[in-house]
Amino acid sequence: MPASPIRKLVPFAEEAKKRGITVYHLNIGQPDIASPREALEAVKENHLKLVAYPNSGGIESYRKGLAGYYKGIGIDVNAEDIIVTTGGSEALQIALAVTCDPEDEVIVLEPFYTNYNAFALENDVRLVPITTSIDNGFALPSMEEFEKHITPRTKGIIICNPGNPTGVLYPREAIMQLGEIARKHQLYIYSDEVYREFCYTDEPHYSCMHLEGLEDNVILLDSVSKRYSLCGVRVGALVSRNREVIKSVMKYAQARLCSPAYGQIAAEAALSAPASYFKAVREEYIKRRDFLVDTLNTIPGVKCPRPMGAFYAAVELPIDDSDKFAQWLLEDFSVDGKTVMVAPMAGFYATPGKGRNEVRIAYVLKIEDLKEALACLKKALEVYPGRTGR
Amino acid sequence: MPASPIRKLVPFAEEAKKRGITVYHLNIGQPDIASPREALEAVKENHLKLVAYPNSGGIESYRKGLAGYYKGIGIDVNAEDIIVTTGGSEALQIALAVTCDPEDEVIVLEPFYTNYNAFALENDVRLVPITTSIDNGFALPSMEEFEKHITPRTKGIIICNPGNPTGVLYPREAIMQLGEIARKHQLYIYSDEVYREFCYTDEPHYSCMHLEGLEDNVILLDSVSKRYSLCGVRVGALVSRNREVIKSVMKYAQARLCSPAYGQIAAEAALSAPASYFKAVREEYIKRRDFLVDTLNTIPGVKCPRPMGAFYAAVELPIDDSDKFAQWLLEDFSVDGKTVMVAPMAGFYATPGKGRNEVRIAYVLKIEDLKEALACLKKALEVYPGRTGR
Repeated sequence: MPASPIRKLVPFAEEAKKRGITVYHLNIGQPDIASPREALEAVKENHLKLVAYPNSGGIESYRKGLAGYYKGIGIDVNAEDIIVTTGGSEALQIALAVTCDPEDEVIVLEPFYTNYNAFALENDVRLVPITTSIDNGFALPSMEEFEKHITPRTKGIIICNPGNPTGVLYPREAIMQLGEIARKHQLYIYSDEVYREFCYTDEPHYSCMHLEGLEDNVILLDSVSKRYSLCGVRVGALVSRNREVIKSVMKYAQARLCSPAYGQIAAEAALSAPASYFKAVREEYIKRRDFLVDTLNTIPGVKCPRPMGAFYAAVELPIDDSDKFAQWLLEDFSVDGKTVMVAPMAGFYATPGKGRNEVRIAYVLKIEDLKEALACLKKALEVYPGRTGR
Repeated sequence: MPASPIRKLVPFAEEAKKRGITVYHLNIGQPDIASPREALEAVKENHLKLVAYPNSGGIESYRKGLAGYYKGIGIDVNAEDIIVTTGGSEALQIALAVTCDPEDEVIVLEPFYTNYNAFALENDVRLVPITTSIDNGFALPSMEEFEKHITPRTKGIIICNPGNPTGVLYPREAIMQLGEIARKHQLYIYSDEVYREFCYTDEPHYSCMHLEGLEDNVILLDSVSKRYSLCGVRVGALVSRNREVIKSVMKYAQARLCSPAYGQIAAEAALSAPASYFKAVREEYIKRRDFLVDTLNTIPGVKCPRPMGAFYAAVELPIDDSDKFAQWLLEDFSVDGKTVMVAPMAGFYATPGKGRNEVRIAYVLKIEDLKEALACLKKALEVYPGRTGR
């Protein structure tokens, strides 16, 4: 399994820190937002004397609570349609395991979350990328473009909505088009919606689970990591109205015994976090995003479309190679003892050569830190030896 | 993936309970022993405001603490030799993933923990069983027997010591013989030692990690689930002095991001559980085991060798088919509104037809409950229509 391009940078960041440099991490999706008080308190007030195995499919009361949460956003599922997983990662991993045979193909829109590669590799599934472009805000490709990539071995399409690494938010029409493709070619839709709460339009999030007549095709992959800033609890969910899929998923779930007990306690309690929690989080992210995008677009040669979801922005920079640039930022650059770490976008593409002048920036830092970080980035672009288009 | 024979019984147990029958669960490895106070308190007193991703390889202080624990039992490893996993299950799953190619073979001694099948299947690895027998207490097969099963595709041997489902404890000489085989044929030893604290001889546990000159061959799979009665926290470990293996394991670990944060807090605190905790647990299990074995061996037609490790006993019964018998116990039998659930042993064998007159009994219940359960079992054997050897 190849190391991701971000991981390759980690030693350089550590070296920089050893030299006393402050590194602003614009590279990671670890929010700095506090977890809901309800979740933290529930764990602190738990009465377990013996931390036994919870049910392999998830703690019953949590599954019921989660079904209630989905109903509240117009996704009509019951506790039996939900298997609690060890993070969203495991949800996709098992989804591929139960629906694909070795050498089957799954379509994915690039740039995409690099760990999809690992889950595909673990299941001997071939990811078939369709390239999307910063020029139209990473919009969903056309029906024709999808059909060019569908073969007899195609089992489904992975969609991440809102999207990591681009922050793209697919509107209702795009999801309906995706539904048409799945219906016509009888494909699964693996719908990664772990950023569902981070949508910045006035429309409610339109989920693949809202598509009618595709109950057997859609597999929802979810997680509390981002929603409640609970990355470390390792609790996700796989949701589907396809009974056969859920039955097979349950067998995998039984083989790994269960998802973490304390994490499920936190996740269940988080369901009662008040609307004000999300409102505050959403407002904070919109503020950060706007600051980020507005500032970036004032830097000569930089292009950053305003993302409508998640907390990532895809940014085009006037540089020769984002891998080199990101390493140079850590190894050879600093201003007033500070530098930034960004995620080179090439690693999020499967097609070689793509994304070389793009980086992903996660706006998970406070405005004051973002300000410092962007000042560094601006200065860096002025002096970077590999700058293009001067 | 086939459902395990125990899982197939679950609906029958639920039905029995609905009819008001008390079911004594002798079928599961969920100890009723309390987790160490230190672990429970550490979680209740944690100060996290944001449950972020811990390091993919495990929380640094926990890895260091764990290295100290291993040093204390004569296993000389450092924090860098340890990757914290999401339970022992994940440890074996990743160990097979990084060491085997599809269609490679791994030798396993049957009867064995059924979930090994799932982990092998997930990695497209073929498990090659060597049968061991209740007649000699499930002793390690001879060198010749191993060599009969080694092919050019054999990558290693899975050993569970002390063993689930038999309670077998391999003495030092057996482990040294295993080491000889691994050395001669350059095989990995996947050493599942999650029951290490449950040894009932006066000898200290002899680990495959104690074998000299096999530093690159031995991969230790561990877990806090049984050791500290912390099954639900989902914290295990993969330990190896093979740097290449650890490097590859780390890549898998990074793909699934991290092991649970709260679980690691509990596991780290559990390291400071006093010796008295283990002493009390050990004494309790010895009492239960002796009661179980002594009682069983008074029942006509029943044979139960005294297991020297873990908390399972393999029991030979005068019955036609343990799958049928176990189902009959739940469906058609009860005495004074009580019955027992046992694990049919056939499901722990890969060779068809083996273990049909054997069951696994977990002595995880209090003596008074064990007493009731065994009274039921005795009565059941008197009236079971499929009884043999009358």
